[in-house]
Amino acid sequence: MIQMIKNLSKEALKEYYQELKSKYEEYKAMGLNLDMSRGKPCQEQLDLSAKILTVLNDSEDCISKDGTDCRNYGVLAGIVEAREMFAELFDVEVDETIVGGNSSLNMIYDTICRAMLFGVYGGEKPWGQQGEIKFLCPVPGYDRHFAICEAFGIKMINVPMTPTGPDMKIVKEYVESDPQIKGIWCVPKYSNPDGITYSADTVMALVDLEPAAPDFRIFWDNAYAVHYFADEDDKLVEIMAELKKRGKEDMLFMYTSTSKVSYPGAGVGAMAASKNNVQLILKQMMPQCIGPDKLNQLRHVRYFKDATGYKQYMKKHAAILRPRFETVLETLKRELGGEDIAHWIEPNGGYFVSLYVMEGCAKRVVSLLAEAGVKMTSAGATYPYGKDPSDSNIRIAPTYPTTDELHTAMDMLCLCVKMAAAEKLLEK
Amino acid sequence: MIQMIKNLSKEALKEYYQELKSKYEEYKAMGLNLDMSRGKPCQEQLDLSAKILTVLNDSEDCISKDGTDCRNYGVLAGIVEAREMFAELFDVEVDETIVGGNSSLNMIYDTICRAMLFGVYGGEKPWGQQGEIKFLCPVPGYDRHFAICEAFGIKMINVPMTPTGPDMKIVKEYVESDPQIKGIWCVPKYSNPDGITYSADTVMALVDLEPAAPDFRIFWDNAYAVHYFADEDDKLVEIMAELKKRGKEDMLFMYTSTSKVSYPGAGVGAMAASKNNVQLILKQMMPQCIGPDKLNQLRHVRYFKDATGYKQYMKKHAAILRPRFETVLETLKRELGGEDIAHWIEPNGGYFVSLYVMEGCAKRVVSLLAEAGVKMTSAGATYPYGKDPSDSNIRIAPTYPTTDELHTAMDMLCLCVKMAAAEKLLEK
Repeated sequence: MIQMIKNLSKEALKEYYQELKSKYEEYKAMGLNLDMSRGKPCQEQLDLSAKILTVLNDSEDCISKDGTDCRNYGVLAGIVEAREMFAELFDVEVDETIVGGNSSLNMIYDTICRAMLFGVYGGEKPWGQQGEIKFLCPVPGYDRHFAICEAFGIKMINVPMTPTGPDMKIVKEYVESDPQIKGIWCVPKYSNPDGITYSADTVMALVDLEPAAPDFRIFWDNAYAVHYFADEDDKLVEIMAELKKRGKEDMLFMYTSTSKVSYPGAGVGAMAASKNNVQLILKQMMPQCIGPDKLNQLRHVRYFKDATGYKQYMKKHAAILRPRFETVLETLKRELGGEDIAHWIEPNGGYFVSLYVMEGCAKRVVSLLAEAGVKMTSAGATYPYGKDPSDSNIRIAPTYPTTDELHTAMDMLCLCVKMAAAEKLLEK
Repeated sequence: MIQMIKNLSKEALKEYYQELKSKYEEYKAMGLNLDMSRGKPCQEQLDLSAKILTVLNDSEDCISKDGTDCRNYGVLAGIVEAREMFAELFDVEVDETIVGGNSSLNMIYDTICRAMLFGVYGGEKPWGQQGEIKFLCPVPGYDRHFAICEAFGIKMINVPMTPTGPDMKIVKEYVESDPQIKGIWCVPKYSNPDGITYSADTVMALVDLEPAAPDFRIFWDNAYAVHYFADEDDKLVEIMAELKKRGKEDMLFMYTSTSKVSYPGAGVGAMAASKNNVQLILKQMMPQCIGPDKLNQLRHVRYFKDATGYKQYMKKHAAILRPRFETVLETLKRELGGEDIAHWIEPNGGYFVSLYVMEGCAKRVVSLLAEAGVKMTSAGATYPYGKDPSDSNIRIAPTYPTTDELHTAMDMLCLCVKMAAAEKLLEK
């Protein structure tokens, strides 16, 4: 396309649409079965961690450095060497961490569940006994965060993302005026799906919040903390240190996991929070759990050694992911660049490329793709209640397919973006 | 002792008490540090499972029999071969199982949490929206069950255990008249702490219950399903099959784990329930979890092969545990047999011996032991709210100490039982 679609005459547009459509039918006839729907590591990435399987070889290997037999019961907060590694990654103290099972999502859900039923440190009542409570949801965002709110009947309020993080003017207005606002979802680094890292100003505005609710919490889901594939890693201000300077460290819950470092199905999740928060949470966890899988924690720490080893290891992932993201970005540029029917953000890390198609076209694009055997995340999934008010955002997850599959899927995606735009323009 | 303590004159009793006391002081001077407090496997038992660590050696080993890559995300209900093995153990169908992380306690807690917040299948409202709800607690029982009720504010009602299980006349009266009764705790085989296996009549009385509450559930915590150490295994009627005959299978939640088969800290927990229950639970779990640790499930199934291999394997545990239980029972018989200041049950399996000392003496016995360096489960812990109305039950957990330690600890225990009895009799 030399000429922009939007500038075509109706006749030319019709003709152009027919061209697109016949290409689409050709693809469709190929009976494709491609999946760009979830942020799943590909097999090549999983193979990187094969040696983690054989770190523990016999009974003597199972003793932690403080003498704990990791095969037996106990140690609710996680083994000491795992807490140390995550403390370094979170930039907090060891007793400000809890290392858990294979899923940080589970730890997030359980945190909210406890807050609903029993309350958080410093709260007068459980969240669940305070009428309708609300969470701020920077959008687009992570569908599973929104699903948790929906499960607990927590009202979600959209806050637009900007290139530097959530619109902090709006966040401040809400948080400081409404005591029913109990939380804000943050994926502060290489955000899902936009790939945006919060700027220093954004983090400072967050720590300077004076919430109307004494039991307000920032949910800092640092899922992509070490997941850059560009030449340089984005810099994220250490939020806990800034909160501590202000004596406001109880306002924060942080999470991360090794899901996209070692294995999504058999990694280690961890959280960090102030000592007050951690002590209360451990007390609340007592009836639920005797201890996490300590052998898997031990496997991970012995394998990665420490936070430095852990970060270093991610270069291997970057080498696998970089060409995949390049394919996505090059195809978008080649096929949709110059057109004003789509725009996107080039991320330096994370797991997604966030594509914005012409308003009212996202659902149509995803459904055209599905019909032709290319599975995408549902349009709208990146918004609370699955409702993208502009029906514009599409999350591209380029990690799982092979590079060949990705080329085909991206060509298809761009074709469908043009088709949907043409259809929309022809309606007028 | 030839003469029974209770028949001694006051003078003779005083003299006898002084003898006991000086023996006690000798023990105390030894500075012991023994632990008979928790049902923890000993190192010898843990060493049995060393080969489970090396079942999965490289990436190719990580594929489940239906082709699932167990390293990656997904499979909320557990991998198919793990579900098959547990289905056989539970005597249910595969789609009536959920295989989880390393803890069945966690699955029990989460079941109750979901019931409180969202309700169970067939319930009109969540349990948490029905005013004060209640659970029947056969006593003595498992302290961590009671802790869950306490955490959720569920009122606990004591039901006496008989040699054949809970007193079913009382259970029936409560369950059939009071819709606020939502559950009953059952450890149906080698019960914690009494080591009692429910008789066929007891199971039949349970399945014949016509609960006043449509959302009543039997919590069938079959923690010691395969844990016999006597020559013959106790027989337990398969409750699910009986419920199905009556079309009442929604009334049951079953749990078990490999905690005391492979590793307490790194085993696999599982639950079973009707299809209706399982489908609702999986739906409710969606926002909490993407999937359990599938690699650890795979390790376990590849290691044990199937339910038969699993049961066969327990003979190795039995060989380690039998002498320990013999030590406990022989010491009790030798030191307290013939006295009517204590009685106990001889179990064929499980993890405990339940000792009943003279009324009003259990706390004193445990505190005398603690003072001399022998840690026991708190007196009262086997009752709701930690309150043993008779202050009589003491749970002995003989698995963790070495046999030598056990000899000393048991001698000490019997000594303290006599001391406390003598003190009590001298008060009169």
